[in-house]
Amino acid sequence: MKPERISKLADSLKEQNIGAVLVGPSPDLEYLTGLTPSQDERFKGLFVLSDGSFFYITPSLYLEETQKCIGHDVKLYVWYDEEGFLGVLKQASEDFKLQGLRIAVSDGISAVHLLDIQKTIDGDFVKGNILLGELRMIKDAEELDNLRKASAIIDDVVKDLFEFIRPGIRERDIKKKIEELCLEKGASGLSFDPIVASGPNSSMPHYNGDSRIIEKRDIVLLDLGCKYNGYCSDTTRTFFIGEPSEKEKSVYAAVLEANLAAEAFIREGVTCEEVDKMARDVLKNAGLDKYFITRTGHGIGVNIHEYPNIVANNKQILQNGMVFSIEPSVCIPGEFGIRIEDIVVVNEGKAEILNKFTKEMLVI
Amino acid sequence: MKPERISKLADSLKEQNIGAVLVGPSPDLEYLTGLTPSQDERFKGLFVLSDGSFFYITPSLYLEETQKCIGHDVKLYVWYDEEGFLGVLKQASEDFKLQGLRIAVSDGISAVHLLDIQKTIDGDFVKGNILLGELRMIKDAEELDNLRKASAIIDDVVKDLFEFIRPGIRERDIKKKIEELCLEKGASGLSFDPIVASGPNSSMPHYNGDSRIIEKRDIVLLDLGCKYNGYCSDTTRTFFIGEPSEKEKSVYAAVLEANLAAEAFIREGVTCEEVDKMARDVLKNAGLDKYFITRTGHGIGVNIHEYPNIVANNKQILQNGMVFSIEPSVCIPGEFGIRIEDIVVVNEGKAEILNKFTKEMLVI
Repeated sequence: MKPERISKLADSLKEQNIGAVLVGPSPDLEYLTGLTPSQDERFKGLFVLSDGSFFYITPSLYLEETQKCIGHDVKLYVWYDEEGFLGVLKQASEDFKLQGLRIAVSDGISAVHLLDIQKTIDGDFVKGNILLGELRMIKDAEELDNLRKASAIIDDVVKDLFEFIRPGIRERDIKKKIEELCLEKGASGLSFDPIVASGPNSSMPHYNGDSRIIEKRDIVLLDLGCKYNGYCSDTTRTFFIGEPSEKEKSVYAAVLEANLAAEAFIREGVTCEEVDKMARDVLKNAGLDKYFITRTGHGIGVNIHEYPNIVANNKQILQNGMVFSIEPSVCIPGEFGIRIEDIVVVNEGKAEILNKFTKEMLVI
Repeated sequence: MKPERISKLADSLKEQNIGAVLVGPSPDLEYLTGLTPSQDERFKGLFVLSDGSFFYITPSLYLEETQKCIGHDVKLYVWYDEEGFLGVLKQASEDFKLQGLRIAVSDGISAVHLLDIQKTIDGDFVKGNILLGELRMIKDAEELDNLRKASAIIDDVVKDLFEFIRPGIRERDIKKKIEELCLEKGASGLSFDPIVASGPNSSMPHYNGDSRIIEKRDIVLLDLGCKYNGYCSDTTRTFFIGEPSEKEKSVYAAVLEANLAAEAFIREGVTCEEVDKMARDVLKNAGLDKYFITRTGHGIGVNIHEYPNIVANNKQILQNGMVFSIEPSVCIPGEFGIRIEDIVVVNEGKAEILNKFTKEMLVI
């Protein structure tokens, strides 16, 4: 348990006039308790009240590892498969006087469970994901060190991949190599299933296939990250095999310029939408903005996607301790895609770029 | 798209007086459309109406692969990062007259998204997971063939593991080997992160650690499954390293007897709770029922956990084409756990056991 974080959360509940928050299996739960149960059909969740009290509901078959992680002092409600979770939820809501409260619901709770909860507790249910998101948005020194290390590992992996990738291997060979290299270099695992998108597959931002064979003249987009001490890295580089076409060269140059322009602009006090606009304007001037269909970036921490979002209309002001990606891209459907992504920290007012692997156009 | 399955779903909506169902990223969605997008903070979902019409909402960055999978004829609503999904949801709800309907919500939709949807569509939202679950509960011949093949592969993996496991290796070495063997033998991947629980870890039913080293005198519980052509396998065997203690022997014998008693009882027409009771009674007679803290089994198909649940109070009558696990266990906290699990099909009225690897006590 992280009592300091829970007490900060309770403070922010009070400020926002929210009675309690329900946190399901998610990075939020891990951030508050250290617990990492799977999100499945068996309900489990932590309730934190604005007075700082809290309790956890768990299915019986997670009881032992739950107590191992959070100790025996936390108030636990345990339910069994043959009865379902609504009985203990009702009991807990009486014990902690949840009826009638405004209750925020955070990540990791499914809609199916919420429908049951809404029938059991007569409360005013509101979205709570932003609540936890804001709590987690400013990283402390220890968190930043973990994020730096996770980025350093993944840079090193990208370096090795540049040596490893060659015509004739499949996308899935590269994916497998990424996992091996991450573990070898001290990561605890991957922060997400890596994207290895070659040839025309590279135009799909979240491509999840793996069977295409790398050709002698090709393009390989690598979007990958690892976890170190619970914290994520996330970087993208786009490599060429053989000489790129003129079109590919000019698109690459524009994406790189967009990446550099946004990163150069980052400092304490500017807004997320302004950073997004810096990248977007470069691609607009190059006539490529209609192929830039994603946000410029996303926050990162224990989760691969956190706040702040670097996106149009986000008036969030950048502050020291915020960490996010800058990843402008051009995706031309059926042709190819190029993306260049770094993780950036706002540190002592300025941008600290965590990814150091070169962004110059590399040809294998 | 699977028009036949969608039309069956529409029929069952009509029968149950439900106007529409919303299906998020999940095995349900894969079953109906073939789509396998990730479940993340970007809303995506399929609405099927009781008149058989349907539409799909997708974030822009999944558009290309969505159309590749479901073609260009399906009505699509596309939203962009800077605007969010509620605008297109509102438009769709007007186009398809969703206001005022009873709308079932199925798996893969988060509570956070539901809270937004409830504010945008003035409908009566109800749980829809059982709806899809029932549709998927009876497998056709092709589905059964895939399930048989997935089980045959995993049996073969267990056989190889029996040769592979030895003192000195870590739980994670075995986990890694499981993945390698599954791919080698033709599976497309794992159906879940395998559980390799050794020594006292074996008493935690969903143990997810991996660092313990196998000792000269030890117990290793292996719970593993793979995917073949979209369908899952799931089996558990518990091996001993060195001579087991008398207590371990007698517990093993009781768990095996419970497994065999339940499997022998399975036939068309009996209920799920009766099957559960067969296993539970054996362990009760052995004085071990307080250590049998889980249900006896769960359905399986494209998802690792489906209907029917083999659990107390479930009056569901077994029918041909139902497929589920039988996995009695004894978990003695701090000491050890034993579980023996097979997948069983109700076929031509009788039980067909898909897992053929021996259940006799094996000592490495």
